[in-house]
Amino acid sequence: MKIVDIISTQIAIGDPPLLNAAGLHAPFALRIIVEIVTDEGIIGLSEIPSSEKIFLALEGLKKVLFNQDVFQLNNIKKIIKQKFGDTDDQRGTAPWDQRLIVHLFSAIEVACLDCIGKKLKRPIVDLLGGISREKVPFAAYLFYKYEGAGGALGFGVENNISGWLSDRQKEAVTPKQIVLQAQSMCEEFGFQSIKLKGGAFHPEIEFESIIALQEAFGPNVPLRLDPNAIWSLETGIKYGKKLEGILEYYEDPVRGQENMALLSKEVNIPLATNMCTTSFSDIPLSIKLGSEHIILSDHHFWGGLRASIELNKICQTFGKGFSMHSNSHLGISMAAMTHLGAAVPHLDYALDTHYPWQVDEVVKGGKIKIEDGFVVVSKSPGLGVELDRKQLQKLHKNYLECGLKERNDEIEMKKVNPEWQFKLQRW
Amino acid sequence: MKIVDIISTQIAIGDPPLLNAAGLHAPFALRIIVEIVTDEGIIGLSEIPSSEKIFLALEGLKKVLFNQDVFQLNNIKKIIKQKFGDTDDQRGTAPWDQRLIVHLFSAIEVACLDCIGKKLKRPIVDLLGGISREKVPFAAYLFYKYEGAGGALGFGVENNISGWLSDRQKEAVTPKQIVLQAQSMCEEFGFQSIKLKGGAFHPEIEFESIIALQEAFGPNVPLRLDPNAIWSLETGIKYGKKLEGILEYYEDPVRGQENMALLSKEVNIPLATNMCTTSFSDIPLSIKLGSEHIILSDHHFWGGLRASIELNKICQTFGKGFSMHSNSHLGISMAAMTHLGAAVPHLDYALDTHYPWQVDEVVKGGKIKIEDGFVVVSKSPGLGVELDRKQLQKLHKNYLECGLKERNDEIEMKKVNPEWQFKLQRW
Repeated sequence: MKIVDIISTQIAIGDPPLLNAAGLHAPFALRIIVEIVTDEGIIGLSEIPSSEKIFLALEGLKKVLFNQDVFQLNNIKKIIKQKFGDTDDQRGTAPWDQRLIVHLFSAIEVACLDCIGKKLKRPIVDLLGGISREKVPFAAYLFYKYEGAGGALGFGVENNISGWLSDRQKEAVTPKQIVLQAQSMCEEFGFQSIKLKGGAFHPEIEFESIIALQEAFGPNVPLRLDPNAIWSLETGIKYGKKLEGILEYYEDPVRGQENMALLSKEVNIPLATNMCTTSFSDIPLSIKLGSEHIILSDHHFWGGLRASIELNKICQTFGKGFSMHSNSHLGISMAAMTHLGAAVPHLDYALDTHYPWQVDEVVKGGKIKIEDGFVVVSKSPGLGVELDRKQLQKLHKNYLECGLKERNDEIEMKKVNPEWQFKLQRW
Repeated sequence: MKIVDIISTQIAIGDPPLLNAAGLHAPFALRIIVEIVTDEGIIGLSEIPSSEKIFLALEGLKKVLFNQDVFQLNNIKKIIKQKFGDTDDQRGTAPWDQRLIVHLFSAIEVACLDCIGKKLKRPIVDLLGGISREKVPFAAYLFYKYEGAGGALGFGVENNISGWLSDRQKEAVTPKQIVLQAQSMCEEFGFQSIKLKGGAFHPEIEFESIIALQEAFGPNVPLRLDPNAIWSLETGIKYGKKLEGILEYYEDPVRGQENMALLSKEVNIPLATNMCTTSFSDIPLSIKLGSEHIILSDHHFWGGLRASIELNKICQTFGKGFSMHSNSHLGISMAAMTHLGAAVPHLDYALDTHYPWQVDEVVKGGKIKIEDGFVVVSKSPGLGVELDRKQLQKLHKNYLECGLKERNDEIEMKKVNPEWQFKLQRW
């Protein structure tokens, strides 16, 4: 089954004004929907974060991957490396990853696996060793935020809606507001674990928010805090000590493997990362230093689903936990994450997802259901989702009209607060 | 595609009187041919070493794996672990591995992948990420041996044959005879790397054999020596120092990861292992101690082809080399090794194989061709081999008649030299 075309469509999806260490989410998050067209008429899908660099590189792959067999993933990887250099570029200092090759390979691999699954009439999970669990646990992902829902809804609060759709538009800058956000999200989706994106306000406020969540949800709902590597080692240790026995894990409180290792000697909470150990080449030092207990994979950043399965085995082999990181995304990424989450033999923690924050969708039938905090893995061929072409056009129009080309949370923050500047270490 | 039956057939294949640290090869090597029969009529094959324990366990799997889908390899592994205990048993002190679960999972997984490949009309290599190389390099595998060809040929030298078939029957107990063996084997199969199984004679003889090989083949043919962990640290260091610049790698000169690590500090030759680091649970300590540079995988001992792919990624991640170990085997194992060798992205060394030593075959069309030291990976569905049922019956009859139930090289050696005893450390 040969690749005859690769169609990449940039889309912009409504995203609320969520806060993080790098600034503020723009009203739109940018994604690329990739379609691999084969000579058998089967089309495979994938979804990755968008940037001009990634989009242009995908366009450049059309020619070199023409006529490649979708099963030859090792060879496809070689070709991509040959074209764009064997050495991975740097991930940057932002909470999200900016490397080219891993994104490209994720985009192509997931779409090829979708083709293979459709051809074989088998869900992707069955191409990854089969089901380890029928339904995959996700965690509530809380954000400090300004009022507004982003996207076409702009920054205002829309009337005539209720429940989570309404509550997600509300301001959340205090511990009390965070608790209300958590309650609404958990009521809607049934999440049984809660993660708070930190690094946005003074550590004391974020600490108080965790305490408020613990008081509201009791000791049986696992809590996590992610300061996005913006805290000093001193601050990370200070609040870590206060959060012992309270957090399920402490995600990237400080920057770099060395700091994580130093912190882990002082604080008795498992440390998780998607910023300090982010590629296979980072793993030996992570193991040597003992810098993290849990690796948060992301198939967009680790080079696809099969690479994530290999990462899972490495985590299992070295006694590390495994879970998943997320960025703002739609149903194609959600489907891929669910197949991976259903396949990995080694999974102790509910996965991150921004999915409840996005109202837009690009797959037929609308948003994929999260019930009791779980997504049931599809038994349909491939990813099990189909592209809603009307929605794709609408979201591509959003892209053309919104004027955004890259994610830059600092620029968005400056629109609200011109004095604001990104810092590698803030508190 | 559901499993409806698992047929395990014990066979005995002719094996010459090869010497190793554990004694002497019996006239027959024991293998089990596994057939997984599915509800779609497709039959998947695999081949593993035989023992009563493994055979009975395979019989016990018929019931618990009945109706399992061949794609659900993660679940099949769970079921096998549930039935036979989650903890791997010990591999023992012999050069070959004696663990149950990894053998069982290898037998079932390879046969399931053969079913899947046949169903999809795809070679197994394409189920493992596709082709990284079209042809897979193997090394000449030299043995000290007594006169004779084993099997039906007994211990005598048959007339009327020439070339390798004749030369493989000859005695090889001196450096000169080892060189003749190497020349005959390389002429027949075109091998471009040479491994000598050591641990059989005094280290001085084995050292002299390597020197004789170097003199005969020149500096461009990589040489390896495998004393099967029978040397003391002192001996390993002494001969290691003499072999610097001569050996491509030094395989299991001493016993245990700690000794390998100590030796590696003294000797400037890459160390390889299939006896000191033999399972995923051994890997963290191997990495920590720096005990080996190269892991010799064996899909029969590491739990199958997909697990070996994961091991390959671990080796790549930690900067370790990867190659393959072998035991006496036929064409089904050869086919599986070749698919794996064709798929792994990371391979710097020619693989071991005993294959030239076995004249018997169980696949249609006779022995798989080794040309210029390479085996070309099959493009046919699944493993790309078919069972020759006449041969299977003949080799099963061999099994029933030969009286052997387990491999025990010590017993065989005692038949020649009653005083001989296996020792963990001999020199």
